Amino acid sequence: MAIGDQTLFGISTENSQGEDFVRVGVIGYGYWGPNIVRNFHTQERSRVVAVCDKSVKSLQRARQAHPDVPVTENCADLLEAADIDVAAIVTPVWTHYELAKAALENGKHVFVEKPFTRTTAQAEELIELAERKHLKIMVDHTFLFTGAVRRIRQLIGDGTLGELYYYDSTRVNLGLFQHDVNVIWDLAPHDLSIMDYLIKEKPEAVVATGERHLNGVADVAFLTLYYPNNMIGHINVNWLSPVKVRTTLIGGEKKMLVWNDLEADEKIKIYDKGVEKSGDVYKLLVSYRSGDMWAPRVEQTEALKIEAAYFIDCILNDKKPFNDGVAGLHVVRMLEAADRSLEQKGKIIRL
Amino acid sequence: MAIGDQTLFGISTENSQGEDFVRVGVIGYGYWGPNIVRNFHTQERSRVVAVCDKSVKSLQRARQAHPDVPVTENCADLLEAADIDVAAIVTPVWTHYELAKAALENGKHVFVEKPFTRTTAQAEELIELAERKHLKIMVDHTFLFTGAVRRIRQLIGDGTLGELYYYDSTRVNLGLFQHDVNVIWDLAPHDLSIMDYLIKEKPEAVVATGERHLNGVADVAFLTLYYPNNMIGHINVNWLSPVKVRTTLIGGEKKMLVWNDLEADEKIKIYDKGVEKSGDVYKLLVSYRSGDMWAPRVEQTEALKIEAAYFIDCILNDKKPFNDGVAGLHVVRMLEAADRSLEQKGKIIRL
Amino acid sequence: MAIGDQTLFGISTENSQGEDFVRVGVIGYGYWGPNIVRNFHTQERSRVVAVCDKSVKSLQRARQAHPDVPVTENCADLLEAADIDVAAIVTPVWTHYELAKAALENGKHVFVEKPFTRTTAQAEELIELAERKHLKIMVDHTFLFTGAVRRIRQLIGDGTLGELYYYDSTRVNLGLFQHDVNVIWDLAPHDLSIMDYLIKEKPEAVVATGERHLNGVADVAFLTLYYPNNMIGHINVNWLSPVKVRTTLIGGEKKMLVWNDLEADEKIKIYDKGVEKSGDVYKLLVSYRSGDMWAPRVEQTEALKIEAAYFIDCILNDKKPFNDGVAGLHVVRMLEAADRSLEQKGKIIRL
Amino acid sequence: MAIGDQTLFGISTENSQGEDFVRVGVIGYGYWGPNIVRNFHTQERSRVVAVCDKSVKSLQRARQAHPDVPVTENCADLLEAADIDVAAIVTPVWTHYELAKAALENGKHVFVEKPFTRTTAQAEELIELAERKHLKIMVDHTFLFTGAVRRIRQLIGDGTLGELYYYDSTRVNLGLFQHDVNVIWDLAPHDLSIMDYLIKEKPEAVVATGERHLNGVADVAFLTLYYPNNMIGHINVNWLSPVKVRTTLIGGEKKMLVWNDLEADEKIKIYDKGVEKSGDVYKLLVSYRSGDMWAPRVEQTEALKIEAAYFIDCILNDKKPFNDGVAGLHVVRMLEAADRSLEQKGKIIRL
Repeated sequence: MAIGDQTLFGISTENSQGEDFVRVGVIGYGYWGPNIVRNFHTQERSRVVAVCDKSVKSLQRARQAHPDVPVTENCADLLEAADIDVAAIVTPVWTHYELAKAALENGKHVFVEKPFTRTTAQAEELIELAERKHLKIMVDHTFLFTGAVRRIRQLIGDGTLGELYYYDSTRVNLGLFQHDVNVIWDLAPHDLSIMDYLIKEKPEAVVATGERHLNGVADVAFLTLYYPNNMIGHINVNWLSPVKVRTTLIGGEKKMLVWNDLEADEKIKIYDKGVEKSGDVYKLLVSYRSGDMWAPRVEQTEALKIEAAYFIDCILNDKKPFNDGVAGLHVVRMLEAADRSLEQKGKIIRL
Repeated sequence: MAIGDQTLFGISTENSQGEDFVRVGVIGYGYWGPNIVRNFHTQERSRVVAVCDKSVKSLQRARQAHPDVPVTENCADLLEAADIDVAAIVTPVWTHYELAKAALENGKHVFVEKPFTRTTAQAEELIELAERKHLKIMVDHTFLFTGAVRRIRQLIGDGTLGELYYYDSTRVNLGLFQHDVNVIWDLAPHDLSIMDYLIKEKPEAVVATGERHLNGVADVAFLTLYYPNNMIGHINVNWLSPVKVRTTLIGGEKKMLVWNDLEADEKIKIYDKGVEKSGDVYKLLVSYRSGDMWAPRVEQTEALKIEAAYFIDCILNDKKPFNDGVAGLHVVRMLEAADRSLEQKGKIIRL
Repeated sequence: MAIGDQTLFGISTENSQGEDFVRVGVIGYGYWGPNIVRNFHTQERSRVVAVCDKSVKSLQRARQAHPDVPVTENCADLLEAADIDVAAIVTPVWTHYELAKAALENGKHVFVEKPFTRTTAQAEELIELAERKHLKIMVDHTFLFTGAVRRIRQLIGDGTLGELYYYDSTRVNLGLFQHDVNVIWDLAPHDLSIMDYLIKEKPEAVVATGERHLNGVADVAFLTLYYPNNMIGHINVNWLSPVKVRTTLIGGEKKMLVWNDLEADEKIKIYDKGVEKSGDVYKLLVSYRSGDMWAPRVEQTEALKIEAAYFIDCILNDKKPFNDGVAGLHVVRMLEAADRSLEQKGKIIRL
Repeated sequence: MAIGDQTLFGISTENSQGEDFVRVGVIGYGYWGPNIVRNFHTQERSRVVAVCDKSVKSLQRARQAHPDVPVTENCADLLEAADIDVAAIVTPVWTHYELAKAALENGKHVFVEKPFTRTTAQAEELIELAERKHLKIMVDHTFLFTGAVRRIRQLIGDGTLGELYYYDSTRVNLGLFQHDVNVIWDLAPHDLSIMDYLIKEKPEAVVATGERHLNGVADVAFLTLYYPNNMIGHINVNWLSPVKVRTTLIGGEKKMLVWNDLEADEKIKIYDKGVEKSGDVYKLLVSYRSGDMWAPRVEQTEALKIEAAYFIDCILNDKKPFNDGVAGLHVVRMLEAADRSLEQKGKIIRL
């Protein structure tokens, strides 16, 4: 795994079983960084070998939690170190492009927070660069690794829900306010990446409405996504909600589903409820079906742990992650379209 | 109170205390009609003196519940009867205009289900006709008489919530499918009338998106309402939801509120939560406030009982009801705009 | 159906289809009486032909709701009338014995509120009297006719839950305070009758604890019921709870169940959860099983409607109701034992 | 702080600010141990200087989480080391006495899991020994340091609830089965210590019922505690519940309270509900009051962090912790009484 001769941190590339392992340098130790460090550091086949943050206080926290991991205030140290295989970029979105580019140019794989980049052009450039250098990019769409999302994908894939009618997500809470992006860029990437993962068809158009109240960026917003075959998506994001809600309704021809991610035990409920149409075109009859409800057991393993293991496996065995740069680009493209629609008060943007 | 000499049902116009009372004829005894009959029939100052429905089965139900109230299959009997003061029209919306017009022309006050009419032109004509004949119209926006809505109006009116940021309502369930109108006309009138009642400013534009899946009319829809001063409204209506939701979030500068109408006891929760901005324009700081929650006791009296009493009072004392034809027209105007926006996939419609 | 020649209310004993029907006289029109009247009055094969209450105000309410039903302040009128087949006794428990006895002596079947009587001696006397006169007694254990209880009985009966470990019910709320009985007599009969209906074995002993705070009778109480084979029952009843709770946990060898009667839709949840023991006696291992949850659709028909129809059917076709006097006696025996235990601060009372 | 000259782990007794700090050795790294290590290790004034566990696997986990903390399989190393000030005993209850005794005899303060000991005799001996050696004992009744319990204590202390009527706790879940103790010893110490902390009076008697189903110890149990002045306590503990419940109702003369510890945000709800008695002894009237509900903000800091800081402070400043050996003894005394009552099927045990 060692990429060059020059080593900064002097870390061995073999774990105690004599296997190769992956050396991860983490840039950014704010809100989410500690989870990244913990998860890559406790994998069998990876180690965090450096943490970088501009804040002295953050580095203190890192040292306290992981006394064995070197820290630095200077990202260049980490980006240029020969004995680091992966740069994990856990910083604000406007810094992603520059940091990821430097990492790729220095021969490092990139694990980067969502959303991937600030623009589609940046995303495309990074994808091209990674391909050229034979490096991997993984965008941290953590939700795709939760037991709930994987179970829902299975339920859609095996036809349990039938043809999809709608996907309607409410993702609201108080804060965290971002200064560089609006609430859509902060919260909607979760749903956009999940929809991309769950729904076979791609959206054809987006309509976004919303309003700004405090710091000049939209803090309340509503997205509609038009899909082929009358499937419709809707995402309600809000930084000004007094209560936290993480609820998604998915309506299908055969079954309907409620995913409440805040429930400890019964995150997914599948309802044998539906509407059946009968009669001819002149006298359409609609009848309701109301049967049992069923809450399948959902795998509880921490999503980030699975995701980290998956990325390590992709690197060690040269596989292409499904949540790669292209998947990240899809989400950025939707975000850009949503921004354009939002500015024009709901004007439809074709994709 | 008697309007003419000719009487059909031979009902006295005085109650047992020798006071005037109002004689109500109810047209339509389907889903909501029984509530109208029960509430007007048990008022001190009103009696239901006739029930009309085209369905023999519905009339049987009426007779069983109210053996003392005459029933008829012929609406004309009721509309033309001299000894009826009020026609309560509890029929599908496409019939409202014709029935209300006949009632007004026959000198009857009109109590009519929401939405008022199928078009603004119809609403305007009925308003004009009622004025000319010195008759009252009340549109049955029942929610305005619930303890919850009256309490919320008070909390907004007395400044408890501060300047409003948003009103976001989710009103979804499985069915009832209407054949003549889409889900917006079925479910959104509740929120549109409530917003009209709660919010001082009027909306300036509407954006509606949605999709049809079963019987050719939209069964899932999302409305955004733009108000002055960055206030934004949002209504999520859906006939294809496996679960019933009746939840409204109202965000204000000072406090935030959750109204869950399905809660038995704590329908309204007021959160001492918020965001405060500080700092200059170059370095805006946003800080959160998270304090106590408070659930005020909400009056539990059946809303329709209060509404019926209010309408009777308006008639007996010649007062103008606040939920009159003009209030009903406002809602119809919003519904028409929403339909136009929906057809054009979210095109903004200025009001 | 007419029992004698002398008629008071002059009601025909045939319904509109020319079938026999049962004439019900209802004694008591307080909190529960209106439901009894409504349900017996709207059956195909029964009519309420008289309502009796000592309170003029209650009779006014009865008249308003059912203008076609004669009312009286004098119970004797009703108890002695020849043209009444059933006396429905919906009065405080201390009056049950006397009223039921008079009704039986006058040749009337008896429908009586729970708990059946104040003492087992009274219950036994009434049972014997009814048998001698070939009359039916039904004790209004309404819960036995709910979709939830019937579904649970099915799930236990068909072995879904496996051998039962425990039945644990919490039934608490604020009021209604009774003056003549304590909270056990008010609330526990529900659970005692349900347990009697669901559980094959009979309890062997009871332990009751509790305390009185306001009006000299226990307002908070806890019952433990010992059954054969280590099955245990527990009932928590409380008139001083700020929240209403109606939750029962039933633990079985194979599956476990939660019945929350306040849930609108998912009253019963069945958990594929459990504990398995393995290993020998010296090294017992316990392992957990945590699988899916399943909420079967529960019949929503009003329980009292089904119960009324069932009683009518028992009378017309001379069948013995399963919730007869003997079932009522079982409950009274438990209540008496609980009272004895309560007075002695939890002393076990063998049954 | 150093206790002797001979040091095993060679740890300085001063932190980076040159202040004294406390060196903690943790015995037991199973389910709860990791939390103890993490919290004592991240305090300003303490460090974990050794972790001991008999399981190699547990020690591996400890090393992975805290690479800077030495581990050992041999407890004697830790108990006898001169450079350890506190032994934190996080092992099964039957080992507490022996380990705590050794620690005290070796001059170490003791932090010990609840319940304190297996018998009151053991607890008394340890208390006496600690006093003689001028050492502190703290029993880890963590709940006493939660924001919720501290808030409830305040609400009782300042008279908000008024005179207490009852304390009723439900603490049920599936497992963890203990092999050495029954469900009362596993789950009830939480409530017993909380009641001891909240309620001024001491219980006078206990009644316990329950049943064993799997491994020979009671897995379902119900405790009633009789207090002076008609105050009553009740604890429902169950290892065989399909759902986790952590709900306590506290009824007071003036207000009533629900504490749901599984709620993320509104753990405590205070109801302005109650019952008022009036009238003379012959005609007692009870009327209900139903007002607002109020959920005070509850401090969210991890309880164990506060508890650890408090214990450190008690040691450094020679203060007596309120959750000391005597507090632990109270709980053990209740547990012993409960066991005696349980064996005799609810026989009252006077305290």
